[in-house]
Amino acid sequence: MDEFALIRTLLERLPAPRPDVVVAAGDDAAVVAPPTHKLVMTTDALVEGVHFLQSTITRHNLGYKSLAVSVSDVAAMGGEPLWATVTLAVSPTWRAAELVELYDGLAEACSEFGCSVVGGDVVSTPGPFTISVALVGKAERPILRSGARPGDILFVTGWLGGSAAGLDVLQGKRSASPVAQAVLARCHQRPTPRIGLGLAAARAGVSALNDVSDGLASELNEMAAASGVRCVIAQDQVPIRPEVKEHARFADKLAIDYALYGGEDYELVGAAPREAFARLLAAASLYNVPVTAIGRCEEGDGVVMRTESGLEVVEAKGYNHFTRDRNGD
Amino acid sequence: MDEFALIRTLLERLPAPRPDVVVAAGDDAAVVAPPTHKLVMTTDALVEGVHFLQSTITRHNLGYKSLAVSVSDVAAMGGEPLWATVTLAVSPTWRAAELVELYDGLAEACSEFGCSVVGGDVVSTPGPFTISVALVGKAERPILRSGARPGDILFVTGWLGGSAAGLDVLQGKRSASPVAQAVLARCHQRPTPRIGLGLAAARAGVSALNDVSDGLASELNEMAAASGVRCVIAQDQVPIRPEVKEHARFADKLAIDYALYGGEDYELVGAAPREAFARLLAAASLYNVPVTAIGRCEEGDGVVMRTESGLEVVEAKGYNHFTRDRNGD
Repeated sequence: MDEFALIRTLLERLPAPRPDVVVAAGDDAAVVAPPTHKLVMTTDALVEGVHFLQSTITRHNLGYKSLAVSVSDVAAMGGEPLWATVTLAVSPTWRAAELVELYDGLAEACSEFGCSVVGGDVVSTPGPFTISVALVGKAERPILRSGARPGDILFVTGWLGGSAAGLDVLQGKRSASPVAQAVLARCHQRPTPRIGLGLAAARAGVSALNDVSDGLASELNEMAAASGVRCVIAQDQVPIRPEVKEHARFADKLAIDYALYGGEDYELVGAAPREAFARLLAAASLYNVPVTAIGRCEEGDGVVMRTESGLEVVEAKGYNHFTRDRNGD
Repeated sequence: MDEFALIRTLLERLPAPRPDVVVAAGDDAAVVAPPTHKLVMTTDALVEGVHFLQSTITRHNLGYKSLAVSVSDVAAMGGEPLWATVTLAVSPTWRAAELVELYDGLAEACSEFGCSVVGGDVVSTPGPFTISVALVGKAERPILRSGARPGDILFVTGWLGGSAAGLDVLQGKRSASPVAQAVLARCHQRPTPRIGLGLAAARAGVSALNDVSDGLASELNEMAAASGVRCVIAQDQVPIRPEVKEHARFADKLAIDYALYGGEDYELVGAAPREAFARLLAAASLYNVPVTAIGRCEEGDGVVMRTESGLEVVEAKGYNHFTRDRNGD
């Protein structure tokens, strides 16, 4: 199939574009109507063998996840996703039918998150398959990671550690019951960006927000450094998915390490003054996802965690491409 | 150098962001102020060994060109570039200092084209170095490729064929004088997107516009198919860079083939009613770049060219990733 026929085939997989898409993919560039809000813009890439293996994620879910991770960045600004472009660098081993599966997953994510793929580029590569998604969203009141202040409550949405434990499961490592394994695998393959909670956080007036892409330790250290505060969390308040605890026992690992250093959970972590946090809690009751206070911001710097044996320094040891390979150990 | 330190180093190479950039790179997403115009959005990727070789382009010029090719897409909509995100998939052979050279070229292009890099992603890859640029621009009156009508004049900006001939030169093939070789190499390495002429074309009321990324033959066929017209051009009116003619004689090739099938010239090709074309010509006198009528749109389909020996069908044989390797022959 030649490049143009392939692109037409892939575009047919996508849902109808949002009403604000004036001209969808097919010309030199897509045309969209300007929103009245501020825009937010982000991009993320996934490389086969680095960010995923075909043995650990289906092509459908890879398509879904490749959009979800960028949507999560927009959610972490308190924004809503609008329009995406997708670049595929296609290695010789990938066939058109496999790209169609990928686009079906991307299409599902578009429908679920309310955004449109408005363009892209398909190129060949002798290297690994790579997908790069650039996403534009809107945000009435963008929430940065630099706004945390001493006295703010630190919080996270949902549960942490599921994605990294799920990767263990998908790599065939010793794990828990089949039911727990299925839950964890889904955490890794189908992350749910917290768009609604991000909007609720922005409306509630939280002071700082990040998404947990590199692990709680890394995100809190980023927030502490950007805001000029010290983050103090309590180990027993970090919401770890029950299946992660079950898995950790089988795998002879510490459940808290999955939450702190595993990453790819795509939950939100933030800081909020007490009244804003109360408003967020009230709004969050709509979403059937817990919002948990895990600590406080203080004067100072860095991140520390209260454990049974005292205060521990939490270093920014999350996933880092140039120091550790996620699909290694 | 770790990922975060590398990103900081690269961001320092960029010029100060545009005034409409509220929050530049560094948070989950960049924040920009919404323009009142329609937005246009595009993305392009360049892969080492497919789109470029280190022997045919410096890293500085690669950075420059990687933005220029996306800017050209925006220019081909009659728009102006605003904000870009950059994804680098970095192969093990590339060092941080080389990425800095690339960003210096990107920075030069930002300054020259009046846009800002507002974010990005740096990932490692075991495969070839790949740079992907997503770009948002604005356009008061976006010009599509589907608006050409029978009777419209077909025109191109500047001169064609220089980039493909330049690639021959850079690959050490037999060529013309050293002066001509330098001109051609520059055409390949430092394309000039026609932002001003694109805006002038939109204001003049042209009916269709494309940029010449895949060769004149491919672009005209796209326009003919999208607009439902037949494009009839005259070979002796296609503006071929004089150095291309000189090179073609040495290389024992046909100069017109470089213009029709070479691609990567990033000139504009369009269609316009007579009065709109006259307005464009008047406006173009500001830019020191010729705008040349090369033919007409008629009822029918496809693309034909009048030559000394009669009418020839011009097929869409431009660069196509899945049928031909640009850096091959």
